[in-house]
Amino acid sequence: MREALVRPGLISLAAGFTDNPSLPVAETREIMDAMLRGKGGQPPLQYGTTAGDETLRTLTARHLAQQDGQPAKAKAYQPGRMMITHGSQQLLYILTEILCDPGDLVLVEDPSYFVYLGIMQSHGIRGRGIRLEPDGIDLAHLEAMLEELKKSGDLPRLKALYLVSYHSNPTGITTVAAKKAAALRLLRRYEPAAGHRLYLIEDAAYRELRFAGDDTPSALTFDRGGNRVIYTSTYSKPYATGVRIGYGLLPGPLLTAALRVKGNHDFGTTNLLQQLITRALTSGAYDAHVQTLRARYAKKAAAMVRACREHLPASVNWTNPTGGLYVWAKMPVRMKTDLKSKLFAAALKQKMIYVPGNLCYCQDRVRRRPNREMRLSFGSGSIADIREGIARLGRALKQIN
Amino acid sequence: MREALVRPGLISLAAGFTDNPSLPVAETREIMDAMLRGKGGQPPLQYGTTAGDETLRTLTARHLAQQDGQPAKAKAYQPGRMMITHGSQQLLYILTEILCDPGDLVLVEDPSYFVYLGIMQSHGIRGRGIRLEPDGIDLAHLEAMLEELKKSGDLPRLKALYLVSYHSNPTGITTVAAKKAAALRLLRRYEPAAGHRLYLIEDAAYRELRFAGDDTPSALTFDRGGNRVIYTSTYSKPYATGVRIGYGLLPGPLLTAALRVKGNHDFGTTNLLQQLITRALTSGAYDAHVQTLRARYAKKAAAMVRACREHLPASVNWTNPTGGLYVWAKMPVRMKTDLKSKLFAAALKQKMIYVPGNLCYCQDRVRRRPNREMRLSFGSGSIADIREGIARLGRALKQIN
Repeated sequence: MREALVRPGLISLAAGFTDNPSLPVAETREIMDAMLRGKGGQPPLQYGTTAGDETLRTLTARHLAQQDGQPAKAKAYQPGRMMITHGSQQLLYILTEILCDPGDLVLVEDPSYFVYLGIMQSHGIRGRGIRLEPDGIDLAHLEAMLEELKKSGDLPRLKALYLVSYHSNPTGITTVAAKKAAALRLLRRYEPAAGHRLYLIEDAAYRELRFAGDDTPSALTFDRGGNRVIYTSTYSKPYATGVRIGYGLLPGPLLTAALRVKGNHDFGTTNLLQQLITRALTSGAYDAHVQTLRARYAKKAAAMVRACREHLPASVNWTNPTGGLYVWAKMPVRMKTDLKSKLFAAALKQKMIYVPGNLCYCQDRVRRRPNREMRLSFGSGSIADIREGIARLGRALKQIN
Repeated sequence: MREALVRPGLISLAAGFTDNPSLPVAETREIMDAMLRGKGGQPPLQYGTTAGDETLRTLTARHLAQQDGQPAKAKAYQPGRMMITHGSQQLLYILTEILCDPGDLVLVEDPSYFVYLGIMQSHGIRGRGIRLEPDGIDLAHLEAMLEELKKSGDLPRLKALYLVSYHSNPTGITTVAAKKAAALRLLRRYEPAAGHRLYLIEDAAYRELRFAGDDTPSALTFDRGGNRVIYTSTYSKPYATGVRIGYGLLPGPLLTAALRVKGNHDFGTTNLLQQLITRALTSGAYDAHVQTLRARYAKKAAAMVRACREHLPASVNWTNPTGGLYVWAKMPVRMKTDLKSKLFAAALKQKMIYVPGNLCYCQDRVRRRPNREMRLSFGSGSIADIREGIARLGRALKQIN
């Protein structure tokens, strides 16, 4: 497979890379040019603080409060609760380090973000999958799960519920606000039996990449005390993936612990890129770029869905994304999609690859990992590549039938 | 203390920040300007690989082989053994994660780099301190320590010897090549009793910041099989601390494990800054900058030593550094320097701070942590600040006598 991946002509609909032609090359050059002059050019090239640039934290917190329709002075949105990280990925890693011991439990969507599942696995964290509906997790299933854990005595090992709540990786599903509020209430109800706080980790990495419908308030909206929601997001996907600037808002005690670990990781995120993003935010370059990106991904998503309609058999189902980078497709019963499946081999032979769906499910002892889905990314490929990639998938499907 | 630290007029000789006026502002602007143009500007703004930019790894490995006077094709210097990290700090963290379990042992210099000691502590790693001589660790002490661990049955818990081998943080000491070779031989001799490889972690973060004397070959020189030395270093200190690009050369099996963890941390270091450093290396801007920096730190070090001679009593000893960012000073017997000491309070009252020496010693059950030393940094302050900072320290010393 390694050989195939470097084979010329391979179309990868697997990678979560973003669109190359729309990267803000000129915008970044202009900002660098203005920033790197005289004495004012020194701070971006010097160490910063472990928590991150104060202006960036303030702007980001204010932006979030605005998005959520909350006053900037609401507790949950205080810049003092925010930390900047080397991509939001680093924050997910640090959160796992500070929240969980080996053997602990985290509830995740079924399916969920596979790199987070990898972090859990590497730390010996057990996952339990909560069923997904088109508007977010199945609350009845969440409640049944909490009840089951309470009865089995496992609840004290439960630390958090992890939701990729906007245009999810991998399904593209967005969680409606009411479900976030209800999930928080449920977690809270089970806290006495757990013996500690049960956090909701809201991974909003794809929030800015919405190209249809309205924005949804985050879980912070419902966390008036600012002590139960951990909100993580990133500027990397909406601005440039080569610029790894993520951020999070954390309850106070967790922030202290997270900053201690961040200090040991790298004592602070690279300052030059923090100040680049700060300038992009204040100059309006960031907002303008996000608008461009949304229009572009809307087109690419539409092209992928159209190609699915054209080239995939009626027995295949796929989503029609309203944001993010992914179409989630489901093959007919009994057709497997994993790395060792006939379909994956046939697709590779046609010179296209996808992310097998089973990789996006946690190991949950009560069910087998579903194995007939796939994640198809319209992020990095050109429209021509997307169309051709789906056509090749169609040929692969025909071949093995 | 927190209040004092933000007090205007405080001179910090504590921070390991680098010199502001010599930061490569114009050089970085020029590189960005040339790099961020048209299609060629897209790759720096896109994700890279987990291991890091191939050209950067190749250039760096070649540079190291040259410095060590070894053929570029020698096994230890293969770019395929290298990974790029978010500062070398991140690599030290990852190494701890992959090498050590709680309760394991690492041998460190006495004193050693306090952030590394913090990583060890946070992972439950026990440290044992090896005495330092002006040319590096005391080999007899290292041998006695290994023998003691063997006899006590603790040797199987020993994983590595960690040396800050060039212009050490905090002492400024450089380890001579012969001691590296001898340490490697000793570790190897005890491997059968340990039951596994005993790695030498060579932290060469300050190697490029040499302003007197000749360069010393690294431990890689003596690791012909390429399987016992882990070499870590960084471009952050010699180029710009706001640009966090570290790197390391690792034995194969460790590299595989380290890349897996790096994938979970952040799936690769921010690409824009990797390509910035690559261009600085190829254009000659990096070399030119390092020359400027060396001349600058030579002057600042001389200013600090001169100020020590002028303002500190004869009962105080201090080092005369040949590189790096630090003077290491030793107070007279019975004068403590820790955060709760009279001296620290008096210095703070004089509006100057230093790093207390005791923070740089691991917790070693066979000795108390020495508590009459301090690390004085000439990195970030102006020459006027350095002189005034030392004068204030002198006044503080007088005051408490």
